[in-house]
Amino acid sequence: MPNFSWQIKYSSKKSLARTGEIKTPHGIIDTPAFIFCGTKAALKSFSTIEAKLNNTQIILSNTYHLMLQPGSKIIAKHGGIHKFMNWDGPMLTDSGGFQIFSLGYGSVADEIKGRSLNTKRKKTLIKIDEEGTLFKSYIDGNYILLTPEKSIEIQRDLGADFLLVFDECTPFHVEKNYTAKAMHRSHRWAMRSINRFNAKISYKSEHGSSGNQQIYGIIQGGVYQDLREESIDFNLSTIKTFGLAIGGSLGSSKEEMHKVVKFTSRKLGQLHPIHLLGIGEPNDIWKLVKDGIDTFDCVSPTRLARHGAALVRTKLGKININNSIYQSKLEPIDKECKCSTCKNYSLAYLHHLFKSDELLGLQLLNVHNVYFMNHLMKKIREAIKYDKLEDEEKNWFK
Amino acid sequence: MPNFSWQIKYSSKKSLARTGEIKTPHGIIDTPAFIFCGTKAALKSFSTIEAKLNNTQIILSNTYHLMLQPGSKIIAKHGGIHKFMNWDGPMLTDSGGFQIFSLGYGSVADEIKGRSLNTKRKKTLIKIDEEGTLFKSYIDGNYILLTPEKSIEIQRDLGADFLLVFDECTPFHVEKNYTAKAMHRSHRWAMRSINRFNAKISYKSEHGSSGNQQIYGIIQGGVYQDLREESIDFNLSTIKTFGLAIGGSLGSSKEEMHKVVKFTSRKLGQLHPIHLLGIGEPNDIWKLVKDGIDTFDCVSPTRLARHGAALVRTKLGKININNSIYQSKLEPIDKECKCSTCKNYSLAYLHHLFKSDELLGLQLLNVHNVYFMNHLMKKIREAIKYDKLEDEEKNWFK
Repeated sequence: MPNFSWQIKYSSKKSLARTGEIKTPHGIIDTPAFIFCGTKAALKSFSTIEAKLNNTQIILSNTYHLMLQPGSKIIAKHGGIHKFMNWDGPMLTDSGGFQIFSLGYGSVADEIKGRSLNTKRKKTLIKIDEEGTLFKSYIDGNYILLTPEKSIEIQRDLGADFLLVFDECTPFHVEKNYTAKAMHRSHRWAMRSINRFNAKISYKSEHGSSGNQQIYGIIQGGVYQDLREESIDFNLSTIKTFGLAIGGSLGSSKEEMHKVVKFTSRKLGQLHPIHLLGIGEPNDIWKLVKDGIDTFDCVSPTRLARHGAALVRTKLGKININNSIYQSKLEPIDKECKCSTCKNYSLAYLHHLFKSDELLGLQLLNVHNVYFMNHLMKKIREAIKYDKLEDEEKNWFK
Repeated sequence: MPNFSWQIKYSSKKSLARTGEIKTPHGIIDTPAFIFCGTKAALKSFSTIEAKLNNTQIILSNTYHLMLQPGSKIIAKHGGIHKFMNWDGPMLTDSGGFQIFSLGYGSVADEIKGRSLNTKRKKTLIKIDEEGTLFKSYIDGNYILLTPEKSIEIQRDLGADFLLVFDECTPFHVEKNYTAKAMHRSHRWAMRSINRFNAKISYKSEHGSSGNQQIYGIIQGGVYQDLREESIDFNLSTIKTFGLAIGGSLGSSKEEMHKVVKFTSRKLGQLHPIHLLGIGEPNDIWKLVKDGIDTFDCVSPTRLARHGAALVRTKLGKININNSIYQSKLEPIDKECKCSTCKNYSLAYLHHLFKSDELLGLQLLNVHNVYFMNHLMKKIREAIKYDKLEDEEKNWFK
């Protein structure tokens, strides 16, 4: 535990915005920070060497995917996920719950963006009860029971710096009654997760990874303020965790998401670093840091790159490199950007690569988008330090 | 021209093997060297930054692809292909002929490996006559006439260090009569190519690229020794070029390829660097350097990586990372290899990436395969220096 600490450095007088420092055995995370998704122990088309070169502080991986392929035991044999994927910076793993439920229900991001669940997608969630959740492996069709204890054991094998308690991620469209029932069960699951986590304090002797880890609790309660408050009370009074994540449904629109985050975050205080699960588009981040959010994660930077979208400092937030207006542009995506893609390549070249189906195109956009997000977070941290978040936001958007 | 030179440094007493130095405005190429294919002004899933880190000396790009997409004019506007693709080392462009004819007839590599031309593939070669070749663009279906003059003008726009004369690449299965007829026409095309090349000596004033370039002639004649000798005579006596490439059909088997190269190369002397077009698997290279070949090009290192094949120092030459025997192997592809993939990743991790359809897998295999080829060429150069090619070849294969 002396290897971990959380400290707030500067707090805004105008909002809940704050900068901080999360110390881990794999280095310090300056917050607010963006966590990049290395879903299957790999960033999409992006090496960890490039991630470091582009100022990445922390990566997350998904327990659900890794337990199915390659399995947590082979990762433990490597000495943990850091060594497996060659990343020596901080890492976080989720509990596996989110994917099980989002594949069963549709994801929180789908809801906020108004996407309906693709009905052709096979539902793999079979049953939820007190014990845990039964689901069907998308790899081999086998039935698998994931329980809080099992999730923690897998996350111990993976050996990331931060674990999440196992929870049910209820969708927006379920009734309040079900949201409350699921929340209470998730609270019981959280206690079981923490019991299992604490029982493994001498983990190092059994496994390759150090076992030097900390756990995050998750605030449940969907869009209902009273349920969120009950969950906050549970997380602050009944259990003890290093960090807190805001999970579950955040509503059916961006407006509702901001409302839910606002009434949740203002009760969370300063004792924990606060993570907002699965949200992190640049335009949202400017607002959400004012609610005291310390870390964000989102697949968008690398997913956008795959589709030819480069992040830019406009209200629209991105350009589509496939657009024929770029075929003769000699300038980079952003003249002021210091990423190696903007320093070395023209829009015309990037357009040509996408037109020619060259995978190098998405690799180069990845570099830009990852650098962009890390640069954005750095600018936000500087702005909070001088309590000039509004001014900096105006400067940011061109 | 003072920026270019060719010099032999060490010659074997046991064979025609030699080491040399090709000086270009973009740096020195130590030979024997491997030229990596950046077909469409991009290495496949591999940045030029990584190419340099992994000791790559020279890259080639294909005029045929680039003239269709993005067009040579936009590349000229960037100041040439070096700037367009961010590669400041030596480059070579082919004349466009090879792709036109290989799409029309099937490629030389197809023949040597006994692959028949896929009859479903649409033939795009429409007509060959004295003027040039008429073909159909695979991008928009337009008819395009490529002539020797046009090919050189495009290659001037591209601005690589080395150009190739425009030629017809006849397949193995045509009769000797046609091979002779095509060879004579290719000789006339070579003269037209060189005339056009020489007429553009003050190219810099007109275009972005420096125009500081040299040209290679191509030895024709298919599998027929008398025709090859006639073509050698033409290339050595009638025209004057910086380098010589061995082109055209090399027969229908590896044995025949080695026979054709042997009777061709031994007449080429020491005045030119000798390039063998389109051939370069590790096992072949050990033999072909003994015939005095100085440079090789082949798509195989990056193509193999795409299919999960890693180059290794065995007679078979490669392993398939998709094979389930690798799923629990903690060791790297090759413990002795100093590439960043072997230094940082296990076979189990690479297997996991391919199993999970993560593009990072092919990127990491690319790093290994490119490093492997450059390391192989370095070992060969050292062995020639001490005239121990046979010993080194035995050491190489485990």
